Amino acid sequence: MKTTQLTAEILRKKSFLCVGLDVDMEKVPLAFRNSPTALVDFSKAIIDATVDYAVAYKPNIAFFETYGVEGMAALKEVIDYLNEKHPEIFTIADAKRGDIGNTSTRYAKAYFETLGFDAITVAPYMGKDSVEPFLAFEEKHTILLALTSNPGSNDFQRIEAHGKPLFQSVLEKAKTWEGSDRLMYVVGATRADALTEIRKIVPDAFLLVPGVGAQGGSLADVATYGLNKGVGLLVNSSRGIIYASQEEDFASAARQAAKTMQEEMALLLAQNNFI
Amino acid sequence: MKTTQLTAEILRKKSFLCVGLDVDMEKVPLAFRNSPTALVDFSKAIIDATVDYAVAYKPNIAFFETYGVEGMAALKEVIDYLNEKHPEIFTIADAKRGDIGNTSTRYAKAYFETLGFDAITVAPYMGKDSVEPFLAFEEKHTILLALTSNPGSNDFQRIEAHGKPLFQSVLEKAKTWEGSDRLMYVVGATRADALTEIRKIVPDAFLLVPGVGAQGGSLADVATYGLNKGVGLLVNSSRGIIYASQEEDFASAARQAAKTMQEEMALLLAQNNFI
Repeated sequence: MKTTQLTAEILRKKSFLCVGLDVDMEKVPLAFRNSPTALVDFSKAIIDATVDYAVAYKPNIAFFETYGVEGMAALKEVIDYLNEKHPEIFTIADAKRGDIGNTSTRYAKAYFETLGFDAITVAPYMGKDSVEPFLAFEEKHTILLALTSNPGSNDFQRIEAHGKPLFQSVLEKAKTWEGSDRLMYVVGATRADALTEIRKIVPDAFLLVPGVGAQGGSLADVATYGLNKGVGLLVNSSRGIIYASQEEDFASAARQAAKTMQEEMALLLAQNNFI
Repeated sequence: MKTTQLTAEILRKKSFLCVGLDVDMEKVPLAFRNSPTALVDFSKAIIDATVDYAVAYKPNIAFFETYGVEGMAALKEVIDYLNEKHPEIFTIADAKRGDIGNTSTRYAKAYFETLGFDAITVAPYMGKDSVEPFLAFEEKHTILLALTSNPGSNDFQRIEAHGKPLFQSVLEKAKTWEGSDRLMYVVGATRADALTEIRKIVPDAFLLVPGVGAQGGSLADVATYGLNKGVGLLVNSSRGIIYASQEEDFASAARQAAKTMQEEMALLLAQNNFI
């Protein structure tokens, strides 16, 4: 998918919501817990309930991989369901991969070709030749970890090097890499203050923003500091939507939680003259 | 497996060789290329040919994951083969995972429990709470990327922060984390000069050293600067062994390449009074 298509879809749905499919079998409603097909059934139910209000879905690969072969089969079913039933949806494999050249190419093929995702999250620690192989795939997107929303982001991402935090160096270098127009960046909403600096470095890139809601980030702050000319934001919510209720009414509760976020997003898009 | 068991096995085999199973279907002998079971068959043939000279095997997960569900089934067959036929072998999932807390726990379960590896490689960018979940598993080991052997390692790992390269801060912080006695570190052999500094910070940890051979690192240099009281080294070779020949004699060529490395290792262990 092209980013211009993603922007068009955001404006059509008046939403820049990404729903994170962190399908934890210890948290899904009881009716699913003993079912061998629960990973797929629960994911599909959440997609059906929320798709009117979301433009992207982000399966968390660990929650599938933990079940080995069966988990990977479930992941394939979920992404196939998204691609077949909702081809307008932007799909993100939250995999945080990254390795030397030919190995990164294999990971890229796994997620872009074998599975058919539009995007994958990638870690920057190994540098340019670990990321560029992902950038070689046309109309596919690599979402590089810049500043994450967890406490451990202070350990290295904010370490001061050459007079600035490391994550700024990551952004500055990454934007010079071959195929960098296919880069997006993960920037935690718990650090909305950092968005101003980040937007100076990567004014045109899409940012994937986790940490709104459960982790305490403010959607209004993210919009204020993060919106660019093409919207340029995907705000992710996982737990706040998919576990809005852990009872039988989980689907309607998820739908309502997604709708509430979409309505706030519509307001922010209107205030910023996008719609 | 305990590290004391690993050391005992190293001394018994007079080898600290790890064979990297980067099974690239474009490089395996022709006889395998059109076989649906080639990933497993080639891996098993390499294991059988080299197991007398190696103490560890390191499947590169990307080369399995790229084939989706079938690839994960193949990986399961390979690790089961190692665990059943060669329980004394130290098994490393070269996966370079890492994510926030509960997600890292899922990756740890995938590789330590569902698949049954002894160790997994992990990227440090997200900090303490992305790594500690892996360290909670007894007799399992987390091999943290410190200084890798690729050109891109200069981009961030060697960036100067607080008067020292970032990878040194990674080592210094990591060794303070809960369960850090289960940490090992990836240190590329192309940087043998850095091993002296690294050994000052983590004198007791095992180091997994890629980059000997094809990438130009010297085994003698690695031993000189890297050996500790418990040996503390695993030197990996992938291409130099598994593609020593790409013809019908691939197995005997792989065996010979592994034997050559083992003999050099035996000499280095003798010179350093281990055997």
